[in-house]
Amino acid sequence: MPILHGNGETDARCGRQYSTAAVPAEIITVEGRTSRRGSDEVACEEPVEIRVVEPAKQPPARHSIAVTMRTPGNDFELAAGFLFSEGVLKSRESIQKIEYCGESSGAAQFNVVNVVLAPGTPFDPRKFTRNVYTSSSCGICGKTSLEMVRSVCPAPPTGTLRLNRDLLRSLPGKLSSAQAIFSRTGGLHASAQFDGTGKLLLMREDVGRHNAMDKVIGRLFLEGRLPASGTAILVSGRASFELIQKTLMAGIPILAAVGAPSSLAIDMAREFGMTLIGFLRDGRFNIYAGEDRIDID
Amino acid sequence: MPILHGNGETDARCGRQYSTAAVPAEIITVEGRTSRRGSDEVACEEPVEIRVVEPAKQPPARHSIAVTMRTPGNDFELAAGFLFSEGVLKSRESIQKIEYCGESSGAAQFNVVNVVLAPGTPFDPRKFTRNVYTSSSCGICGKTSLEMVRSVCPAPPTGTLRLNRDLLRSLPGKLSSAQAIFSRTGGLHASAQFDGTGKLLLMREDVGRHNAMDKVIGRLFLEGRLPASGTAILVSGRASFELIQKTLMAGIPILAAVGAPSSLAIDMAREFGMTLIGFLRDGRFNIYAGEDRIDID
Repeated sequence: MPILHGNGETDARCGRQYSTAAVPAEIITVEGRTSRRGSDEVACEEPVEIRVVEPAKQPPARHSIAVTMRTPGNDFELAAGFLFSEGVLKSRESIQKIEYCGESSGAAQFNVVNVVLAPGTPFDPRKFTRNVYTSSSCGICGKTSLEMVRSVCPAPPTGTLRLNRDLLRSLPGKLSSAQAIFSRTGGLHASAQFDGTGKLLLMREDVGRHNAMDKVIGRLFLEGRLPASGTAILVSGRASFELIQKTLMAGIPILAAVGAPSSLAIDMAREFGMTLIGFLRDGRFNIYAGEDRIDID
Repeated sequence: MPILHGNGETDARCGRQYSTAAVPAEIITVEGRTSRRGSDEVACEEPVEIRVVEPAKQPPARHSIAVTMRTPGNDFELAAGFLFSEGVLKSRESIQKIEYCGESSGAAQFNVVNVVLAPGTPFDPRKFTRNVYTSSSCGICGKTSLEMVRSVCPAPPTGTLRLNRDLLRSLPGKLSSAQAIFSRTGGLHASAQFDGTGKLLLMREDVGRHNAMDKVIGRLFLEGRLPASGTAILVSGRASFELIQKTLMAGIPILAAVGAPSSLAIDMAREFGMTLIGFLRDGRFNIYAGEDRIDID
């Protein structure tokens, strides 16, 4: 079983000591006729490389699968969520352990995460070492062919989850409150999982909105709680195609976004029987797909 | 010389006829106790594959360099800007032509852009066909090694551009006005180039904020107007590392963002002598780097 850390311990990441996703920066604030020097907190952004290690091979085979910009913290969830969303990992039993590169020898590189496969886990590096396009916002991660966009998606979500109008409208406030605790930077995207009563179950933040969702899904994956068909996801930004794809992979039937959805996000949600809510803010929202899961009366 | 089209002609892209970056969607709007069905416009999002073609080889060699989600339109600028930012293209003379795949045979695929290199242009596919990580928001595009993050950046920008406080504060309003003309979706990121008098020179929109900037830089590249040291860029969202990288590649000394900058964006701006402005909205802004280019008195 993987260890659930990688949570931004006080390391020399970001080129300095820090213990959260925010780091201080000296700035000049200009307002009206005045300007003042001061310190503000900014979202930490750093690259991370995700590697898959096959320990059974002699010598052990290491495959660089992805490099993405991310906010340090919950790095193992990020790696697991990314690899699950990409179809590399099918179950948590396929993971022997997750660790930072060099961790076992006491010289951990906190920007390289090794996902060590359990013996016998099938892995074809040719499928991933070429044309794996990843990022904090890529739509066709791991798929070079445009025709494969649709083929990566699993079956429609199951379950009987329904949310009523007022409950749905209460979610952004809960997300904001949770974000206020964690971030002080104004620069972090959030992704949160809610149950059918509107209770916030899990929230993750990142400079990349797709990373925030990978961290949520990775956590659920590592805890063996997928598919999560009785829950909904709320994202702080826009709803693009790949957020729909990741939500679908996790078996979650409802994706709500504070921002706008894209055309492809709407198309995909409709094609796969998912509920897509956009512009969920200021007491209103739009339903773009799957209205049967929303009680509007 | 490349042809400057790829501007969203009326095609069957997005799976339907359209002529702009926005497409209609049937939605349900819920507000207070009421709900109503109607039509709204949403940002078009589609994958595009960028290929480099070496025509001198027998048979001509085609290399798939990147697949990214983008808003259709200005696709050739996007391809050129991306390849320039990645260091694949050095000058516009290195391009023989840019066209959609199949265009010459009358069966254009509007989601595949072929950038045909001029004879004699050096190109090493091994540098790009493996571990090219691209996206609408990837920080280390084309670089698999974390150590290379800094090595891809060019020399600091030159020139004597300075912007005063009031001029800077006027830019978001100009960007919003320009966006109001082009987009009606609430879902598009924008990137705009301004001169030293605050005149908007060029604006591009996309579902991906990095694509919006690639389109601006690609246009400048194709017109032979790089480095653009006498101009500044304003982006509608956050300032991440790779937006700094792209701005630097274009020789543009000032990047201003309506949203928050990340820690790495600040570090990079300082290291490369660039000016970085964040939270430029509501009549105020923060200076994170390069205050010498801003008149605040």
